[in-house]
Amino acid sequence: MTDTHHEEVRADVVVVGAGLSGLTAALRLVERGLSVRVLEAGTRVGGRTRDLDVGDDVVTEGGGQWIGAKHERMFALLADLGLATFPTHTAGKTLYLHRGRRRTFGGTIPPMRPWAMLDFVQAQLRLERMAQHVPVATPWTAPRAVEWDGTTLGHWLDTHCHADEAKQMFTFGFSLVFCEDPHRISLLKVLHQIRTSGGIDFMLNTENGAQETRIVGGSQRPSLVVADRLGDDVVLDSPVTEIHQTDDEVLVRSARLDVRAQRAIVAMTPADADRIRFTPDLPTRRAALQRVWHNGTESKIFAVYDRPFWRDQGLNGAAVTDLPVAHYVIDNSPPDASIGILLSFVGTTGPDEILDDSTARRAALLTDLETLFGSDAGRPVRVLEQNWVHEPWISGCVSTRAPGVMTAYTDATTKAVGRVHWAGTEAAPEFEGYLEGAVRSAERAVGEVVAATRPTVALASYRETGIGVPGS
Amino acid sequence: MTDTHHEEVRADVVVVGAGLSGLTAALRLVERGLSVRVLEAGTRVGGRTRDLDVGDDVVTEGGGQWIGAKHERMFALLADLGLATFPTHTAGKTLYLHRGRRRTFGGTIPPMRPWAMLDFVQAQLRLERMAQHVPVATPWTAPRAVEWDGTTLGHWLDTHCHADEAKQMFTFGFSLVFCEDPHRISLLKVLHQIRTSGGIDFMLNTENGAQETRIVGGSQRPSLVVADRLGDDVVLDSPVTEIHQTDDEVLVRSARLDVRAQRAIVAMTPADADRIRFTPDLPTRRAALQRVWHNGTESKIFAVYDRPFWRDQGLNGAAVTDLPVAHYVIDNSPPDASIGILLSFVGTTGPDEILDDSTARRAALLTDLETLFGSDAGRPVRVLEQNWVHEPWISGCVSTRAPGVMTAYTDATTKAVGRVHWAGTEAAPEFEGYLEGAVRSAERAVGEVVAATRPTVALASYRETGIGVPGS
Repeated sequence: MTDTHHEEVRADVVVVGAGLSGLTAALRLVERGLSVRVLEAGTRVGGRTRDLDVGDDVVTEGGGQWIGAKHERMFALLADLGLATFPTHTAGKTLYLHRGRRRTFGGTIPPMRPWAMLDFVQAQLRLERMAQHVPVATPWTAPRAVEWDGTTLGHWLDTHCHADEAKQMFTFGFSLVFCEDPHRISLLKVLHQIRTSGGIDFMLNTENGAQETRIVGGSQRPSLVVADRLGDDVVLDSPVTEIHQTDDEVLVRSARLDVRAQRAIVAMTPADADRIRFTPDLPTRRAALQRVWHNGTESKIFAVYDRPFWRDQGLNGAAVTDLPVAHYVIDNSPPDASIGILLSFVGTTGPDEILDDSTARRAALLTDLETLFGSDAGRPVRVLEQNWVHEPWISGCVSTRAPGVMTAYTDATTKAVGRVHWAGTEAAPEFEGYLEGAVRSAERAVGEVVAATRPTVALASYRETGIGVPGS
Repeated sequence: MTDTHHEEVRADVVVVGAGLSGLTAALRLVERGLSVRVLEAGTRVGGRTRDLDVGDDVVTEGGGQWIGAKHERMFALLADLGLATFPTHTAGKTLYLHRGRRRTFGGTIPPMRPWAMLDFVQAQLRLERMAQHVPVATPWTAPRAVEWDGTTLGHWLDTHCHADEAKQMFTFGFSLVFCEDPHRISLLKVLHQIRTSGGIDFMLNTENGAQETRIVGGSQRPSLVVADRLGDDVVLDSPVTEIHQTDDEVLVRSARLDVRAQRAIVAMTPADADRIRFTPDLPTRRAALQRVWHNGTESKIFAVYDRPFWRDQGLNGAAVTDLPVAHYVIDNSPPDASIGILLSFVGTTGPDEILDDSTARRAALLTDLETLFGSDAGRPVRVLEQNWVHEPWISGCVSTRAPGVMTAYTDATTKAVGRVHWAGTEAAPEFEGYLEGAVRSAERAVGEVVAATRPTVALASYRETGIGVPGS
């Protein structure tokens, strides 16, 4: 076999991308009696979930990791897969460090000055109120859509938040939610996200919020379990080069295998889908969306200790600060606290030596952690990082929208193009950017495909594998 | 020879991209005695200049095409190449159609209502004044850089332009300059462009402006002439897959040829450079810039007639309108007016049937042209289009900056990374986005390379070709 003569197989549906969304779609299709092949460019499954090995059977989540009570479809998937969850550690006080002053607080509200607190509350109320005017399914039809889409959350905060502390709190909080500086995110997109992701409190909080719960064994676990069930139907290390559709079928060409199918589900961000040649050309709106799309630019850095020593001091490991590197810190230790892990975030801006010199970056992180948690924090067992900027097949972490994109390209993130359907968390009807969104977008795409497809391949072999039987 | 064992050659400098910028760089390097190879992914030279064949030895420019008096380096290049220019046709009246009312005017200022005119002038003065506070070399250091970079020109116009007509005039004008809806362009970027591209009047005008002059034989001509001089040193149809640099050299791998060189000049937009694997990884700022970059989304559509009949009516073929498709029309006939050509622009927003159904799009264009120029305009000899969204190796036409990008990634567009230097109009010190910028960025990159490189390859073969002797 040579490069130009691949093996070709048939399936009812071909899924492109073995992240959580693509794999969930494949699982649900197989459960409905359809035959599936999943083609993945990289050498692992899980996409933007990736667990890093800390040793001694402990992992720390390098990608998306948290779920909250409103993430119902994700909880349903975990139940199907027989996977357990545990609460993010919050017992103890959170640190708040602002302009050199270190304080602790309980609950979710940092001890801002009263004036800053009032300012925070008024801005939050305003944003929530504006969000109510953004339709869930068609945000681009909001009465002030063009105006809101023409500016950024950062600009809105600059002009509507009057206390530095309040502005900084929103900036850090939303930077984490969106993995992006608020000066680069469309205000309309933020308002729509507030409307469709449970509101600002739920988005920003750990307890009673979207960061409340973690998955035992790591957030890549669901993808690994599903892939295991699907077996040989998942083909790794096989980048898709072309998706060709006719009136009757779709032919997906990849490095190791070509698949002819009735339908395709592309479970990637639009930026990653743009690496594929579509024939005939995609509609202009979709092609242009893919070209303008960009993913978020945050990466994660972990300091690992032999135990979570901060808990002895009555601290929960969480911190909100204006320090150079560790703006936001959270305890990411395993459920049994057998070791201690502090998680912080690094973006793509700031001094080059922090961004590109891992020794300098780690030293700067540890200096900040010492300031927060004392000298023990300066002596980790190891430091681990997951950088989402240099991944070969993934253009960054979760993505938002630059100004103008929502009103220009409207439903192009989700609207099927002939036999090609779109999944991935950015194509979610609600909870975009969350694990929940990955699952919801998969279920939406599966619904579209099932409505349009009849099984044509014998099912016996799938039934034998026990796929679709939770815990099998 | 198999796919995995390419031919490998040595050169002093390898240039990636055979657009106007890459070819100009190669020409100037060869003139300075350095050996060069140019690797081009596509099957033609010229990049975002591309002349469409109209028949009878007439071409019409599908890509960048205009130059103005301030574009000194472009005029110098044309003189070196022995290429002639001619004035864009302006004799006659321009049409202005607003809310169904069709009027004509002479000169550059449409007959807006007096209130709209005052509003236009005050907004222009304000923008020009703000632009004076944006440093040419380091726009991200402007006192209000974060604020201006956090919003869009569109939003600024929404809040500072009070007359619809004035706002529309800016919107159309800047949409053409930037090939993008103003609601997607950073205000800081626009101000910097005003500062470095000759001011608003020069940018928007034909006479005494940046659209004053055209190139005889088309704007792809300079690239074709340079490529002809460089001969076999330009390798087409050979996408670069990897750029690997060590302390001593750079190895550029492409589909048909690997080149070892002292330096590389990458003459592409950052979005296109992102298709290449850089080893070791690029610095984070540059990698992130490439990931967030997107190009403009305008395309061109031409109606060709057996003669420029509108000139008989005292019209110059230019029109500014609020019609559905033909917002801006200009006479693009050849210098001898042997045939008539009207040029209009199509973006990537609006109804799908206009964007994706070429029959419907052409019909809609002709309806608008009939409204403007009478029934003769409905009977073209042919209609031609150049679509920049579906190009395989070019991610769109000229590019701007989404909000937040300039302040986040500062000099990453131009700052050399070891032995890799950046050209292409987006890396220009001034006149970014223009042909002039393509040439200036090439000259800047060549300056960097020459300062760091000594010729190591025998020059005789280059001297024999007459390269560097204008008109040879």
